Order: sequence, then C-alpha cells, then structure tokens
Amino acid sequence: MGHGGGGAMSAELVEHLFLPAFRSPADATGPADATGPAGATGPAGATGLAGATGLAGATGLAGATELADAAVVTLGGARVAFTTDSFVVRPLFFPGGSIGDLAVNGTVNDLAMVGATPCYLSTAFILEEGIELAELARVADALGAAARAAGVRLVTGDTKVVDAGHGDGVYINTTGLGLVPDGVDIRPGRARPGDVVLVSGEIGAHGVAVLSCREGLEFATLVRSDTAPLGGLVAAMLATGVDIHTLRDPTRGGLAATLNEIARGARVGIAVTERDVPVAASVADACSVLGLDPFAIANEGKLVAVVPAADADRVLEVMRAHPHGRDAAAIGTVTEDDAPMVVARTGLGGSRVIDLPTGSELPRIC
Amino acid sequence: MGHGGGGAMSAELVEHLFLPAFRSPADATGPADATGPAGATGPAGATGLAGATGLAGATGLAGATELADAAVVTLGGARVAFTTDSFVVRPLFFPGGSIGDLAVNGTVNDLAMVGATPCYLSTAFILEEGIELAELARVADALGAAARAAGVRLVTGDTKVVDAGHGDGVYINTTGLGLVPDGVDIRPGRARPGDVVLVSGEIGAHGVAVLSCREGLEFATLVRSDTAPLGGLVAAMLATGVDIHTLRDPTRGGLAATLNEIARGARVGIAVTERDVPVAASVADACSVLGLDPFAIANEGKLVAVVPAADADRVLEVMRAHPHGRDAAAIGTVTEDDAPMVVARTGLGGSRVIDLPTGSELPRIC
Repeated sequence: MGHGGGGAMSAELVEHLFLPAFRSPADATGPADATGPAGATGPAGATGLAGATGLAGATGLAGATELADAAVVTLGGARVAFTTDSFVVRPLFFPGGSIGDLAVNGTVNDLAMVGATPCYLSTAFILEEGIELAELARVADALGAAARAAGVRLVTGDTKVVDAGHGDGVYINTTGLGLVPDGVDIRPGRARPGDVVLVSGEIGAHGVAVLSCREGLEFATLVRSDTAPLGGLVAAMLATGVDIHTLRDPTRGGLAATLNEIARGARVGIAVTERDVPVAASVADACSVLGLDPFAIANEGKLVAVVPAADADRVLEVMRAHPHGRDAAAIGTVTEDDAPMVVARTGLGGSRVIDLPTGSELPRIC
Repeated sequence: MGHGGGGAMSAELVEHLFLPAFRSPADATGPADATGPAGATGPAGATGLAGATGLAGATGLAGATELADAAVVTLGGARVAFTTDSFVVRPLFFPGGSIGDLAVNGTVNDLAMVGATPCYLSTAFILEEGIELAELARVADALGAAARAAGVRLVTGDTKVVDAGHGDGVYINTTGLGLVPDGVDIRPGRARPGDVVLVSGEIGAHGVAVLSCREGLEFATLVRSDTAPLGGLVAAMLATGVDIHTLRDPTRGGLAATLNEIARGARVGIAVTERDVPVAASVADACSVLGLDPFAIANEGKLVAVVPAADADRVLEVMRAHPHGRDAAAIGTVTEDDAPMVVARTGLGGSRVIDLPTGSELPRIC
C-alpha cells in the first residue's frame, strides 16, 4: 500500500521502475533539444514523466530533475498542460464531497498548478460487476456538477466492467487538458532562496474527513473535505502580474510531501514556522486523537505558492479576497541549502526536520 | 458484465446515465456555436462525450448525433485529438502481446481514427496490493517499448494502490493527445451512400488469442493477438490525398459493433459480402469450435475505412503496401437506408442482419 501513498515509496517506484521503462529516445537529448512527433515539441524543463504518483523530485532520468503536477507540451503552437489521475477513494461519498468531486477537482487543480486554464477532461470508469446503477448515477451526477462548477467540459470517456471481487464499486480516471498562457513558467524548479512560501488555507481537512467517515469516528465538530477547483484562485493570482515561481497542491502526502518535492525540485531548503501554518481546531483535535501529523494529511482544495518576497503581500491579498483562499497565509521562506531539507520552527523555539512521508498513513484517500 | 462489452448495453449506459449527467451548458447551444473556456473552442460536430465505451451512435444528448473514437478540441488554435481508455485485460500477457501493448496501441489507434498524428500519452496505473514488482516491471517495459514503436511519448502519469481483493494485479489507463492536420475531418457521420467499406486485414485474432490463453485452449495453430499501432498506416492513407470519410478500429464488439456504429452515426445502411471479409483459417476454426461469430470478436490492430467509391482502389493499394494493411480488402458498400441497418450477403446467396452485439461475448478482452 505504501507504494501508492505519494511518499518516499511512491518516489522509488517512479524513479526505479517506471521512468527507466518509459524513457524515449527524445528524452536522451535533454529538455532544450527534445522534439517529439511532427508538430509537437517537448517543452523546456519537462522531459520524462510529469506528476507520476503526484511526486516531484525524481532524478532517475537524464534531464528530468523535477516532475511537475502536469506536463506542458507544445501541440501545433499551443502550450498544452496535460495531466492524469485515477481515483480509488473509499467510501465513494464522504462529508464535503465524493469521488466525483475529487475526480474533477484533483485533475483540474493539477492543471492549475502549472498556471494553465483548465479546459477539457476525459473520464474513464472501471466498474465492479454488481454496482447499483442508482449509485453509479449519483457518482456521475456529482462528477458532472463538479465539472460545470470548475468550468471544464467532459468531452471523451470510457467504461470497463470487471468481475465482482476485482474492483470496489467504481474507480475513475480523469485526464485534463489546459492552455498555458504565454510567458507563464510555473514549476518546482523555479523556487529561489529568499522566496516566500504561501498556503491558501487550513490544511488537513480532506484526509481527516475521509478517515473519520471510513472508520465511523465522530468528533465534536464534523470535518468536511476541502475538495474544490482552484483554477479561479490561480487565475486571480496570475492576474496580479506577479512572476509566480511555483504552485503545488498538497494532496497525497500533504504539506510535508509538497514542501519536500519543491525543495528537491529546486535544490533548495525550506524553512516554515509551524504556528503560521493554518490548521482548523477540529482537524488539529482529530489528528491529536488519531496520532496523525496534519502536515502529512491530504488536502484536495489547497495550494502552496512560492513567490518573490517583494510580491508576497500583494499575492496574499488577492488570495484572501478569493473564496478558496480566505485563510491564506505566509508560512515560511526558501533558503539556500546544499541538502534539499525542510525544517519547521516549532512553537517551543526548537526546530524539526519535516521528512517526505515514507509510506501511506491513509490509503485510498483520493 | 454486459455493460462493459461495447455493445448495446454499453450504449444504454452512456446514453441514459453518463451523457445526461455530464451535459454542460455549452452543449445546449449545439456544436456549431459551442464555446468552451477561454482560448478553447468546442469543435464542430463533437459536442458531448466522444468514444464513451468505444461506442458511436448514441443520440441521447442534444446535438450529439455521433460519438467518435476521439474528441477533437481546439486549444490555442491547434486541433487536438483527445481520447481515453482503461485496460483491464486478463491475463496480463497473452500470445502476441500484453496489457502494456494494448494500453499504448488502443489509445494511439483511437487518435489515428480521427486522422490525428499521435503525439503524447499519459499512463495511470491502479495496482493491487501484493503485485510482484518483477511482473509490474515487465508490464512497464512492454508499455515503454510499445510507445517507442508507436512514436509517442509518455509524459505524465499516476499510480494508485488498492487493497488485495479490490483489483487484479494491474489496471492501466492511457489518455492520448494527437494533432489533427488541417482539412482532415474523419468521423462516422461522414459515411455516404455509395462509399466503399474497407477493412485493413484479417479479423478476430485478438479476441481468440486472449480467450484461448485464458481458458487454456489449444488449437492446431496458435492464434496471436493482432495488437499494433495504426498511426503509420493512417498517415500513409492520408498521404494519398483522398478524402477519407470514416475510420474506426473494430475493438470491443468487433466488426459487427463498428459497422453498426457507423451506420447509426451516418444514418445509412451498410451491405457487406461475408466471403470478402478476411478471416484467418485458424481464427475461423477456433470460432467454429467455440461457437463465436468472428464478426463480433475484438481486434486491436485493424481498422475499417469508409472512402468514396472512386478512390477505393487507390486507398486499398496504399494499405496493402503497409505492413499493418497487407491483407486489406473491400468488404461492402454504404447504402441509402432509413433504418441504419447492417446486412451481410452470405456465401449461400442469402442475407442476414448483423446486429450490434448485446452484452459481452468475451469480458475483459482489453
């Protein structure tokens, strides 16, 4: 299960198994010269495999020093963002959302994290024999509604059915296409020492919501998933004209994985101040009962941004004016560091290293 | 299981469940006026959902009178073909190929069927807890090799792990992007009375290969899957300059489903001559033993083309000169018909109606 958790074990799988197998001749020439099939050119900085297991920082492939949430490819002159995700969350419906919401928002957000305007989605269903059509219809309705809310169109699809005992109701893959505006170059590798690290709101809600629901736990306050489409928030941030260096949504592996991926992708350190990271009291309480670290819990409607220090206040102001960024906060800075390490200053004046989570604290969270 | 077979039950699922749920406001204005998000314009003739369950002909959604193998969308001025497929074939390796080959060729071929040059693929793995890493590596190697052979680049990916008993080793989704050349407009709806129907080679090999392997059947001659990428063959056909009206790969549901989908998409009839349809003796023998109809058996490296009668010989010549079209043949003609019916003239001088297969003769064939 750990190989699917988005942490260090996922990274190994990508680096040692998938990347060597998938390497194409064009990758060997390095990003700057990479040319694909007729009319399609590999983008600068995005060779190899983007976003595999939601992971940045794998360096197994020559030229691939960072993996983004979405690949940016050139097709007929257009800069197209392209990303894929499968959703295997259990249960299918949970407080605040459903697999249908996640399937849209997860993919839309990966497009937004490279600065793209999300445009089109494909949907592919793997159904387990015997699933109730009424339940499937509820999932499809949720997915359709989420797509309309995110402003993307579902234009192509597929359905497969597997025998009972070889699935779990429904698994959904969505793959997204977006358009990257001219001049936008947002990726982990652009984080620079001195930059400020922002987070768009309170972390940890999605993971806690799914876990509580799955285990039948009840806390004083119901924790609802934060699943939301972030295209609008990113568009507002881009409209400031600020040169945003990095965007990333802290899904599997949570804020801990995301900060480590950025540090590795840019070969920098990151120093965060623990008490500046927004965590809802209900989430903090639940984590404390369950022995979980809110930093390692999945979010589905939050982003981390790395911006030049001089522009941080302006970006923060715009984020706070947006419904999906109301609780945005500056949580730390990028530091010069030979080892790509993430360090948190704790409330007690000490400091702790924030590791890339190893396995999977919460399997099948998305 | 029948809902996943690519036949009439799959069509119902798409028409009555998915299409109504996925409908977007832009769909309501009809194809000609449809506009998507900024910079992205819905294509003429391709509203709604393309290729869902590999099915053409659903008319549940206003304006969606045909569903193509791939959606063609406009992004930043480029005409981009976009298609998705999940692969759940069992076993993972079979004579002539593997799930890795299918995952590349199936998606590449869907791009080729709208005349696109296949460029990029995403890959998303759903792994069952406990799968041997050595077996996964074999699958990944096969997938990588197939991508190199097809001339496409794997640029983005995802991995999820589900608990033992909720998967079957590995399921793979691939989603493909291609570039549609200017002036190319290939879709089921363009088939016209008088056109000639071509098939690129002997049908039925893939389905028989997987079934024999799964059931441990041995026939006098080993039947190998025909899995192959068809981008090169289609490029050669397009290079003739002939206005190819329709292309379609007869996968799930076989030639029977494909011909019915074209007939429904174009509201025409199709008359085929049974003895002109190439079937290898080994496949014919196996089908006869198993009580299967070669017309309803899946292919993974064949295409059906509908071309103007005057150009049929020229296209056929080019197809036969290509390794993947050596046994190409003209098998019938498009007829004027109020009911979109497919009729085969039998060897005995009679005729039989070829229906859209109802359920699934062979589950999990791709």
